[in-house]
Amino acid sequence: MARPAPLSGFPEWLPEGRIVEQHVLDAFRRTFELWGFASVETRAAEPLEEMLRKGEIDKEVYVLRRLHAEGDEDAGRQLGLHFDLTVPFARYVLENAGKLHFPFRRYQIQKVWRGERPQEGRYREFRQADVDVVGGGELPFHHDVEVAQVMAEALASLPLPRLRLQVNNRKLIEGFYRGLGAPDVTAVMRAIDKIDKLSPDAVRELLVTEAKLDDGQATRCLALAGISAEDGSFAEQVLALGVRDDLLDQGLHELTQVVEGVAGLRGERFAVSADLRIARGLDYYTGTVYEMRMEGFESLGSVCSGGRYDSLASDGSTTYPGVGISFGVTRVLGPLLARGVLRASRSVPSAVLVAVTAEDARAASAGVAAALRGRGVPVEVAPSAAKFGKQIRHADRRGIPYVWFVQTDEDGAVTGHEVKDIRSGAQVPADPATWQPPAEDLRPGVVTG
Amino acid sequence: MARPAPLSGFPEWLPEGRIVEQHVLDAFRRTFELWGFASVETRAAEPLEEMLRKGEIDKEVYVLRRLHAEGDEDAGRQLGLHFDLTVPFARYVLENAGKLHFPFRRYQIQKVWRGERPQEGRYREFRQADVDVVGGGELPFHHDVEVAQVMAEALASLPLPRLRLQVNNRKLIEGFYRGLGAPDVTAVMRAIDKIDKLSPDAVRELLVTEAKLDDGQATRCLALAGISAEDGSFAEQVLALGVRDDLLDQGLHELTQVVEGVAGLRGERFAVSADLRIARGLDYYTGTVYEMRMEGFESLGSVCSGGRYDSLASDGSTTYPGVGISFGVTRVLGPLLARGVLRASRSVPSAVLVAVTAEDARAASAGVAAALRGRGVPVEVAPSAAKFGKQIRHADRRGIPYVWFVQTDEDGAVTGHEVKDIRSGAQVPADPATWQPPAEDLRPGVVTG
Repeated sequence: MARPAPLSGFPEWLPEGRIVEQHVLDAFRRTFELWGFASVETRAAEPLEEMLRKGEIDKEVYVLRRLHAEGDEDAGRQLGLHFDLTVPFARYVLENAGKLHFPFRRYQIQKVWRGERPQEGRYREFRQADVDVVGGGELPFHHDVEVAQVMAEALASLPLPRLRLQVNNRKLIEGFYRGLGAPDVTAVMRAIDKIDKLSPDAVRELLVTEAKLDDGQATRCLALAGISAEDGSFAEQVLALGVRDDLLDQGLHELTQVVEGVAGLRGERFAVSADLRIARGLDYYTGTVYEMRMEGFESLGSVCSGGRYDSLASDGSTTYPGVGISFGVTRVLGPLLARGVLRASRSVPSAVLVAVTAEDARAASAGVAAALRGRGVPVEVAPSAAKFGKQIRHADRRGIPYVWFVQTDEDGAVTGHEVKDIRSGAQVPADPATWQPPAEDLRPGVVTG
Repeated sequence: MARPAPLSGFPEWLPEGRIVEQHVLDAFRRTFELWGFASVETRAAEPLEEMLRKGEIDKEVYVLRRLHAEGDEDAGRQLGLHFDLTVPFARYVLENAGKLHFPFRRYQIQKVWRGERPQEGRYREFRQADVDVVGGGELPFHHDVEVAQVMAEALASLPLPRLRLQVNNRKLIEGFYRGLGAPDVTAVMRAIDKIDKLSPDAVRELLVTEAKLDDGQATRCLALAGISAEDGSFAEQVLALGVRDDLLDQGLHELTQVVEGVAGLRGERFAVSADLRIARGLDYYTGTVYEMRMEGFESLGSVCSGGRYDSLASDGSTTYPGVGISFGVTRVLGPLLARGVLRASRSVPSAVLVAVTAEDARAASAGVAAALRGRGVPVEVAPSAAKFGKQIRHADRRGIPYVWFVQTDEDGAVTGHEVKDIRSGAQVPADPATWQPPAEDLRPGVVTG
């Protein structure tokens, strides 16, 4: 077999990259579980007809077919790979509603598949980390604040470029358009949604021709979309535009709570703002909407999105409202790993390589390794009793910081131990029953730069 | 949408089951990394033609098709979902050979897909946990002992029914057949491979008619397959059959080392034996072969299999020998969860529910939650300021052991805290800055029975 070529859009990491990814996934899991969110995993396949009903991305679904399907049991139930984690989660909630306790708090970290044309930050197979709360019948608003807090707290613990959470509220903008007298609120939202792609004049043109606004109304819609603030001051700016509406008031109140609820996490790595042009017009959100940008990587678009659904799912008798947020793990890590912004401090878990003096003394080295592992030190034994220089190079190439030497007498009995820090060259006597590396050397870490 | 039905062969767990699975996966990861194995994840899709070249399970592959493929870029490169982790790993090794350090130690825990007819322990989507060592050009034998040790050590830490690792060696059986004068060693192996499905007389018939053995040779082959021992004593039993061959000797020596190398892990939960009828005739193993049975679940067949390949992969100039072992996570957990053999001590990560006295005092409860989380205690805040009885029931239904009460004066100022163990009913004053649950209550555990 010749050397295989990578498959475009299906990224894979070398072990070093995987260590970075594990570090990120561990941080998500740790934070989500500290907030009491339970892990859920759904199957990769969903009935195609259910999936297509939910999204506008039917062109991007991968359909499954058994190579030699016998035309029997699969008939009528075509399967596709899930393209997000929201549709499968809604199905899981309905399927298991009688066995779940609501409000149900779950996180879900899995790969999803889309047949998109691959480019940087756009993959055909990629991982998302979702956190949602879903209610049975009703769901208090404070969970809108909570999911933003938990995601922000998880991200703030990671060495990523600066992230900015941008929040808006559909009630706010819809109430504003309504209070303004817009005849077609949805058409206004569709036009405003193009604000990142078109010039202000082109958007104004759409507002007038498509959404049937007069020039003054269009001006105020564009002014609303231009409002952005890192604190509750956006509310005064909105009110200064002179539009009054009950739904608008409710949206202002909700958005203020989300922005102020996350304010405590602001810092060097994390910013939050109310951004009134965020609409996520193509999704079924009904209140809070979230997006997130990464500094220096604006071309990736939003790396973390979500919002409130009044009806995540419904079985006819009960409606399940939900609020959630989804982080694009692969979308963010792909460019960061490719450009070397993040890397692992070594390529293997091992903190120690136990050298082997002679093949018939391997058992002594294995004994040292077992003693170290018993105290939680990741360790491997040298694959061969090569010259020590070669064994040290073996460790060095993998970034293993310590090499352990077992000293024996002429009869092969162990007479002592020494451990060498191959970065400094310092070699000192050590006892396998007590020696411990410094905490920062115990596991591979993530290095920036 | 009506309540959806499960999809046969695509198992999903409730949060309680997922907690058990996480516990098992964590144990694998912890042990594999303590032994210095690096995590690798490969994409779910492989070119179909490459996959079909490797296995005999072409009927079981799921083929991928983009719903609206435009007949351009996908043409000629049909993709399928991987059906194991060995074929993708071999491809990964070839693709990245210049960037990996050999011997390369990796573990891989992922889902795989097979379009089999579903039954207990047989799924269409299931997870495997693989650990392998692969060499560049050569790979010392002691790694055959090591992969058995690391898998056994991971499993011995888990509350599973008793497991028996069964080991054999292809060199041993092939050398034996050769030394016996068998004209077609492969035909003998094919016949012996049927020993679990056919009667001894039927196997003898195959040995005579298909493998062209005389009656005495057939008797000795059946005698060999009947040998099983928990220690090195199998070697004497083999030699007592009177066959001599260099390859046989080498196989005996290797098998003895594996069985004795794992002997230290024997105990209530784990057994190991040399079982000379294990051949794994359909796979390309060239030395050590492993299988594993779970007591009380013999109908599942082997739950953990693997062995040594002289050539896991080859790029024409370099051959990559490998040895590895693969545990069927879903195959084992499916029946254990369904029958209630394993369950989680609670359905959520939370150790504490912080009660909310009134909606306008939610911030005080959120403050307690933040303080507890800051010290690593998983905690959630009650979703509503319902009567305390209802809030306690909220915790009880999820198995959350502690409910925290914030006491306030008439002006809403916090005057004290109490925490209630809802299992015993004991309620005591507590300080959010220092209170810690007992270690066994901190995270959900796995309960047997």
